[in-house]
Amino acid sequence: MTVGDAGLGSDRRDRIVLAHGGGGELTSRLIANHVLPLLKNDRLGPLTDSAILPWAGGNVVFTTDSYVVTPLEFPGGDIGRLAVCGTVNDLSVMGAAPIAISLGLILEEGLPLGVLDRIVASIAAAAREAGVEVVTGDTKVIERRGGDGLFINTAGVGRLMEGPRLDLGRVESGDAILVNGNLADHGLTIMSVRSDIRFDSELRSDAAPLNGLIGQLLKSGADVKFLRDATRGGVAGVLADISERSGLSIEIREADIPITRTARNAAEMLGLDPITVANEGKCVCVVAAKDASTALAVLRSHPLGKAAAVIGRVTSAKPPLVELNTRAGGQRIVQRPYGEELPRIC
Amino acid sequence: MTVGDAGLGSDRRDRIVLAHGGGGELTSRLIANHVLPLLKNDRLGPLTDSAILPWAGGNVVFTTDSYVVTPLEFPGGDIGRLAVCGTVNDLSVMGAAPIAISLGLILEEGLPLGVLDRIVASIAAAAREAGVEVVTGDTKVIERRGGDGLFINTAGVGRLMEGPRLDLGRVESGDAILVNGNLADHGLTIMSVRSDIRFDSELRSDAAPLNGLIGQLLKSGADVKFLRDATRGGVAGVLADISERSGLSIEIREADIPITRTARNAAEMLGLDPITVANEGKCVCVVAAKDASTALAVLRSHPLGKAAAVIGRVTSAKPPLVELNTRAGGQRIVQRPYGEELPRIC
Repeated sequence: MTVGDAGLGSDRRDRIVLAHGGGGELTSRLIANHVLPLLKNDRLGPLTDSAILPWAGGNVVFTTDSYVVTPLEFPGGDIGRLAVCGTVNDLSVMGAAPIAISLGLILEEGLPLGVLDRIVASIAAAAREAGVEVVTGDTKVIERRGGDGLFINTAGVGRLMEGPRLDLGRVESGDAILVNGNLADHGLTIMSVRSDIRFDSELRSDAAPLNGLIGQLLKSGADVKFLRDATRGGVAGVLADISERSGLSIEIREADIPITRTARNAAEMLGLDPITVANEGKCVCVVAAKDASTALAVLRSHPLGKAAAVIGRVTSAKPPLVELNTRAGGQRIVQRPYGEELPRIC
Repeated sequence: MTVGDAGLGSDRRDRIVLAHGGGGELTSRLIANHVLPLLKNDRLGPLTDSAILPWAGGNVVFTTDSYVVTPLEFPGGDIGRLAVCGTVNDLSVMGAAPIAISLGLILEEGLPLGVLDRIVASIAAAAREAGVEVVTGDTKVIERRGGDGLFINTAGVGRLMEGPRLDLGRVESGDAILVNGNLADHGLTIMSVRSDIRFDSELRSDAAPLNGLIGQLLKSGADVKFLRDATRGGVAGVLADISERSGLSIEIREADIPITRTARNAAEMLGLDPITVANEGKCVCVVAAKDASTALAVLRSHPLGKAAAVIGRVTSAKPPLVELNTRAGGQRIVQRPYGEELPRIC
C-alpha cells in the first residue's frame, strides 16, 4: 500500500459508506458511536424499533416533517435544529405539549462523520431546549449524489392540552392578528448564504422551539382562536390559508410588521417580499379583539416574543382576500406564493 | 414557440418541478390532486400540520422508518407498500395495535406524476389492508439527481395492547424460535430485479402488514416473549441481536427453515445466505417451549403464516452465539451481516 492509498483509506474511514446503511454490524456501530451517545434516554436506549410512551391521558397529537435544507449548516442553526424546532412548533400550534420525537436520517455516501456528529449534537441541544426526547429513529444510506449529504425526517407526538379551543371555525371579523417577532430571518439567511451575498450586519436563522412561548399564551386566559407557524410560504401563506378556509378577509399594515433593517435590506437586494419568506421560530396568532393587548403582553414577556406585534385584523370584506396597507398609503392583495423564491429552504 | 418546445412543456407538466416543494400554491395543488384524494380521512382532511388522535387509554407506542428502496416498484410491491407495512410491523412486534401513520414524501424534481399517483394508491391500499389511517404528512422536493425519484418516511403511533409482556429479559434457555413463513423473498426480489437476473419462476416481495397475524398470536394465550420483524440483516441479524442482548445462545436447523425452491436457487445464484436477506412480512417469534405448538398452529391458521415453522431454540451454551446445524450435518456460526449484500433494499 502506498502512502497515497493510506491517506485515501483514512479519509474514507471518516465518511459514510453504503454499508453503514445495510442494517448489519456497521450500521450498529454507526448508531452506537455517532447517534446514540448524545441522544440517549430511557426510551431510546433499548434500541427496539419503536418506543413505548407512558400515557397518563389526553388526546394524542401527531405530526411529521422532512428537512432537505441546503446548506446543512448556516448562521443561527443547521438542519438538525430546524427539524427539532419544526416538529415541536407543529405540535405547539395545535395546542399540544410536545412529548417525544422520532428521528429518521437519510445519509449520503461520502458524508463526513464529523458533520453528522455536529448535527446530532445540535439535535440533542435543540431537544433539551424544547424539553422533548428523541425516542425512536432509523438510519438509511443512499449513494453519493450531489453531495448534499443528509435529509432528516422528524415526527412528533404531543399531548393535547386544556385551554382555548384552537379552531379556524371560531375566527370572526374583528379578531386580531399577531406575530411573535421579526419576520423572514430564516429564509433570508439561507438565501444569502447560498447566493453568497454578504450583508453588512449578520443575518441569522430564527429557528427556535416555540412550545414555551405558546404554552404561556394558551394559559394566559386570552381567547386564542388559531395558531400557525409561518414556515414555507411565510406569513403570506398562512394568512392566505386562513382567509381561504374561513371565508373571511384579513387586513394587515406594512408599518406594523416587525422586521429588522438588515432583513429589509436583504429582502430588497434579493428582490423578495419578506412576508412570503420562511420563518422557523415565528407564529401567526389569531386572538379575540378584546384580548389582543393581553396576548401581546404575554408574547412580549417571553424571550422569543420580545418583538411581537399586532399586524392586522380579520374583516368581513367580500370577496375574502388578504390586503396589505403599504407604508406609502397604498393597498395590495397578498397572495400565497406560487412556488417559492428558492427551493430547499427547510 | 416551436413544436419541440410545446412537447417539452407538456412533458414537464406531468413531472415534479422544484416549485412543487415551495409550500405555495403549487404545493397545495400537488397535495390536493395527487396525495389527498386516495388518502382522505377525517383526521387528514383539515390539512393542519398535525393530527389529533382521540385516545381512550393505553400507552402510546411510537416508531419511524425511512424508505430508499430502488427500484421504486418491484414484483409484489413498491416503496409505498413497503413503508406502510414496515411501520405497521414495527408497531405490531412491540405488542401495539397500529392506530395512525404519518407520511413524509421527498420527491425528486422530474419524478413523473404518474409514478407518484401509483405509489400513493399503493399506500392507501396497504393502509386499508392494515386497518390504519394516514393522518398527517409533509412533502418536499429536491433537485434532480440520480433519477431515483422518491424517498418516503413513515412514522407510526400505536396503542399498547394487553397480553404477554414482550421483553428480551424474559427469554430463557429452551424457548422456541419460530418464523411465520418463507424467508428472503423481499431481498432476493429486489436484487434479482436490479441485477436483471430472471429466474424461471417468479420471485415476489413478501411485503405485508403483520398486525392481524401478530394480534392473533398475542391473544392465543401462548407465552410469547419477544417478537421482531426480520428486515435488513434478515433472520440472522435478529437472532444475533437476541443472542447478544440476552447473553444466551440460539441453535437453528437449516432443514427447518422455510424457504421456497425458487428463493433457494436465486440465493445460490446470487451467492447469498438466505437467512441474512431482508424480509418485509416475516417475524421472528420467541415463545415458551410448552407453547411452541400452540403458537405454530395459530400462525399457520392465518393467511400470512401458512408456511410458519419452528426453526430452532434458545440454549444456555457459552459463549452466547447463534449456531446453524446444516443439512449436511455440519455446524456453523451465524453472524450479523457486516454491511449488506446490496444497499437500498428497503
